[in-house]
Formats: sequence, structure tokens, C-alpha cells
Amino acid sequence: MQARYFAIRDYPRGMPPRELFELHSQTLPELGEDEVRIRNTWLSVDPYMRGRMSGMRTYIAPFELDAPLEGAAIGEVIESRHSRFKSGDKVRHMAGWRDIAQLKGDVLEPLPDMEVPEQAYLGVLGMPGMTAWTGLNRIANLREGDNVLVSAASGAVGSLAVQLAKATGGTVVGIAGAADKLEWLEEHDIRAVSYRNKDARQLSADLEEACPEGFDVYFENVGGACLEAALNRLKVGARIAVCGFISRYNDEAQQQGPGNLSNLLIKRARMQGFIVFDHWTEYPHFLEEVGPRVAQGEIDYEETIEEGLERTPDAFLKLFEGANRGKMLVRL
Amino acid sequence: MQARYFAIRDYPRGMPPRELFELHSQTLPELGEDEVRIRNTWLSVDPYMRGRMSGMRTYIAPFELDAPLEGAAIGEVIESRHSRFKSGDKVRHMAGWRDIAQLKGDVLEPLPDMEVPEQAYLGVLGMPGMTAWTGLNRIANLREGDNVLVSAASGAVGSLAVQLAKATGGTVVGIAGAADKLEWLEEHDIRAVSYRNKDARQLSADLEEACPEGFDVYFENVGGACLEAALNRLKVGARIAVCGFISRYNDEAQQQGPGNLSNLLIKRARMQGFIVFDHWTEYPHFLEEVGPRVAQGEIDYEETIEEGLERTPDAFLKLFEGANRGKMLVRL
Repeated sequence: MQARYFAIRDYPRGMPPRELFELHSQTLPELGEDEVRIRNTWLSVDPYMRGRMSGMRTYIAPFELDAPLEGAAIGEVIESRHSRFKSGDKVRHMAGWRDIAQLKGDVLEPLPDMEVPEQAYLGVLGMPGMTAWTGLNRIANLREGDNVLVSAASGAVGSLAVQLAKATGGTVVGIAGAADKLEWLEEHDIRAVSYRNKDARQLSADLEEACPEGFDVYFENVGGACLEAALNRLKVGARIAVCGFISRYNDEAQQQGPGNLSNLLIKRARMQGFIVFDHWTEYPHFLEEVGPRVAQGEIDYEETIEEGLERTPDAFLKLFEGANRGKMLVRL
Repeated sequence: MQARYFAIRDYPRGMPPRELFELHSQTLPELGEDEVRIRNTWLSVDPYMRGRMSGMRTYIAPFELDAPLEGAAIGEVIESRHSRFKSGDKVRHMAGWRDIAQLKGDVLEPLPDMEVPEQAYLGVLGMPGMTAWTGLNRIANLREGDNVLVSAASGAVGSLAVQLAKATGGTVVGIAGAADKLEWLEEHDIRAVSYRNKDARQLSADLEEACPEGFDVYFENVGGACLEAALNRLKVGARIAVCGFISRYNDEAQQQGPGNLSNLLIKRARMQGFIVFDHWTEYPHFLEEVGPRVAQGEIDYEETIEEGLERTPDAFLKLFEGANRGKMLVRL
């Protein structure tokens, strides 16, 4: 059986060019013992993948050159030599960026049985959703009535973070760019602040207007001026959960950082980085808490969908243009 | 009775000039009810005082212009209308920068009864010592075997931090400048690294050589290149206790910060600012733990002493030249 997959030939500097991603074809070998063959139906593209293209080990190994790229995917079992799986089973796994995956059965997760579309397990009930929940609850220790600020607030992670915060917290403010994103936030009763064409000083002023008392929690996805402005608007005892710095992932040289870290001292604040994979043993807990709310329509989630395997690199690159609303997905 | 005190007429920008500090004289009124008159014997000068000269409220109100400056001091009661104090009692209080203080008795602390020189209660057993202990134990959660990095490691706070860390931790590295400070560190079995004439990259390389495995804890007193280098050398799960950024206190304009905060993410590290005064209820606990070790000579502490009230501003300004070893004091 033929499988097609994307690979990269080089580790790019700066914004990866579209041509970096090459579509390959291979003939899959016969299934080995305990192996399962899956026809992927949905692929995830996520900002963290840029880090795996750097050629350096961060918290995760870099992608191997000329080998199939990896990422979360949902698919249907089409052939199985593993006792736990049979044809037709829906599964989640990490062999994305390809149409047909062939894997040991023990790396597959059967999809939970909830009344949600299967691709939700790549987004609101997948890694991005779990990231929002972990950052708020396990890193920032969100408490009843806390004022919460979220950057990239209409993205896959941010859009769940603002809604979870809204259910617990006090004032919730989301930073986003495009008009439709700001509108989406306002529709969900989140105070929306645009970062467009603003330096940190102007953004600080706008955050002050949106929430004069300042923030107990900042959920950080962006870096740059967003971080600097947020540091200016912390309350005493504030917690910053650092999920990502998407504004910096394509920097060719190291840029300088915020000059106002002294606010951590003045406000006795805490800033803590986290990687959701460290907390994955809590996934069932997350699913139990958030899953029913998604199934009942209490939590809104958006998807931006590209069609066809060939569009996977385009979907990925759009993340850095802020072209997605909610979870960016590829439908095969 | 005449009292002399220092005041400032303006809030300075940049490094305060010596002329900023004016010596005034006043005739003290008769003692009011519950008041006590104290002849100060030792005055403390500390880096945090620069923040009170900024004219802006940080975590503490700015100094009032033309009014006596404040700071920790030790003195002897010479007259009392408070039932708890009598002439000859040794006390600690916050009415420093003057020779004679007149205060309500309830703001005075009697000196504890330990076999240490009285000025130790301004240093190793005072605010700086308590700061080192709090930062390591309450903020950075120092654990057995942790590798610990301390900047300004021969200062009032740092010199206790390295010794406390040494007693619990694994490898302890101290950053300092002058040769005699580096020597002091080496004599106490602390690996000493100089920051002089080094950018963050070179300092990172030297820290790597001193402790190849990286650091679990960073006790931050300095900022600038020290912080950037330390961020490059964190272990997974590291904790940074931010006590101060002395390298930045006299900046006239906001400088940029470290461009490598992404290490907080990669290393799932935490950076937390703290103010020792928030933790003062733990002072008896600190004293019980560290006091006997100081009395028994297990903890070494240095003092840099200026003689006479007139020299108080000079002592203060020397802090920013790194001219002190251990606690900077003024003896009256």
C-alpha cells in the first residue's frame, strides 16, 4: 500500500519557506506483529512544531530530516495485527503529516466516547484544550474571581483559556489582532484588546482601560510587546503561565526581551513555563471536566480547516500569520 | 536635644550624586507618651533604598522629600516613656540615617539575646540574612542536592545565600567581581565566577564550566548579563528567586531585558519575585535556625564599615560600585 508524507530536507532559519516541505511517497511494508494501519482523517498543525524544525533539542527532539514529520492526528484503523484494535476503530496518535500511518498498537489512543465530532480530540479536547486547562489550573493556580489576561486569545489554546477563565474568574481580557477575532471574543463576553500597530506602552494603556485593577493571571502565548504590556499590569501575587512565545518562533537572531521584569519583584509575581506533555497523566481529569461541557455546547470552539494532505504545510505556515481562528486542522 | 539626619531634596535620575544627601539638624521635642529616644549605634544602607528615592510607589512608599530618610538601625535607649523599654536597652528599628531617633515604643524590636555582635542584627541575622533564607527556602524551594547559583555572591544577601545553599545543596556557584570577593568565595568552597568584562555568552560558558549539569536554583540579585547567562544554564524544573536587579537600579531609561526567556518554557522553570517584608512573620523561625549557627561561628559573614553619620551617603553609594564585601554598615 502506498503512503504519502511530508518531510523537510533542512532546518530553516526564520520563517520556513513553503518549498521546505516535500511530499514523498513510499510503499508500506506488510504489517508487523502488533502493528496497526490507520487511514488518517484529520491532521493537527501546531506552533510548537516550529521548535522541532530548529535542528536543536529543546524539550523534545528535532524532526529528523527527510523522514516523515510528526504531529497529532485522528484516523480510522484499516488493518490490525494488534489485539486491542480492529478495522473501523477511531484512534488518535502522533503520526501526522501523512495519509496512511503504520504504527505499533500501543502508541494509539482509542477516541473517547463522547458526543463531539472526532476532530475535537485534536483541538478543544486534545492537546490545545489540555494546554489551556493545565496552564490555568496547574501553573497559574486560577482562583475564583481572578482577573485573567490571555494573549492569542482566539487561537486553539487561547479560545478555550478565555472561556475556562470566564467560568471561574472575574474580568477576562483577550488580546487578538483581526476584527473578526475581536468580535468573537466580545460575543463571548470577553473584553477584547487588539495588539495591532501598538507598542508595549500603548498596549499597557489599553489593558488598563479594559481592566483597571490589573491581572491576577496572565496566560502567555505570544511574547514581545504582549508580555511587556502584561508585566506592566500585574496585580500583587500575579501568576504568569508561559505556554509559548509565538511572536518569536521565527526570529533569526535572538531578540531582546522585556525591560520591565522588575515588575515580577515589585508585584511579587511568578512566571512559569510549562509543557503540556509533562502533565499528560492528568488528561482523563481534564476530559472529565471539560468534555461534557463541550458535548453540551457550553464551550464554543472554532476550527480553521484546510482540505487535503497537500495543504498541510500551508495550514502550518498560516499559524504564524495569525490566519487561523481556533484550531487549525487539515481534513483528508 | 539635637538630632542630625539625612534627607534628599529631589528624586534623582540615574546614579544619585553625593550632593543629593543633605545633613540637617533639628531640636527634638520632649518625649510624648509611649515614646522612646534612641542613640543609634549602627545604621544599615541597602540597595532597595534606591527604589524609595525614585519618587514612585513600588512595593513601598517613596521617601518623603526633605524629611529624615529611613532604614534599619540599631541603637540604645537613652530615655523612655514606654513601659516595655528602659535606658540601656538595645533595640532595632527603621529610623536610620540619623544619630538620635525618637519613636513610639511599639515600633521597636528588642535585640534577641544571642552571642553575636549587635550589628549582626542588621546583616546576617537581619533583613539581608532573612532575605537569603526566604529566597532559598520559601521562594526557590531549595532541596537537598540542588545545584545553586547566586549572583552578587559576596554581598550581604548573597554571602549568606551561598553558605546556606552549601549546607543543603550540591554544587554552589557564586558570581562576583573583585578578586578578593572571588577569593572569599573559594575559601568557603564555593565555585567563584567573575562577571567582569563578560557578555552573557561568555558568562554562560564560564557557568557551564563551573557546573556542567546546570542549576536547579538561581538566587538573583543583579539582572542584566547575569540573568541572561543563568537562563541559559537552568536545569529542567529550575526555580529563580528574584531578590533584586541591582545592575538596573540607576538606569535612567528602561533597558531591554534578556532575550532568552524561552528557556523558562524549555526548562519548565519558574521565576518569582519576592519582598522579604511579606515574609517577616517567619523571622523567629529564621532566627532559630540560623542564629545559633552564626553564634557558633559556622557561618562566616563580612562587614564593610564606614565611620560616622556623615559617611552614610557614601556607604550607600558604594553599594552600586560593588565596593562592599558582605554587609555595608555605618558605625556611629
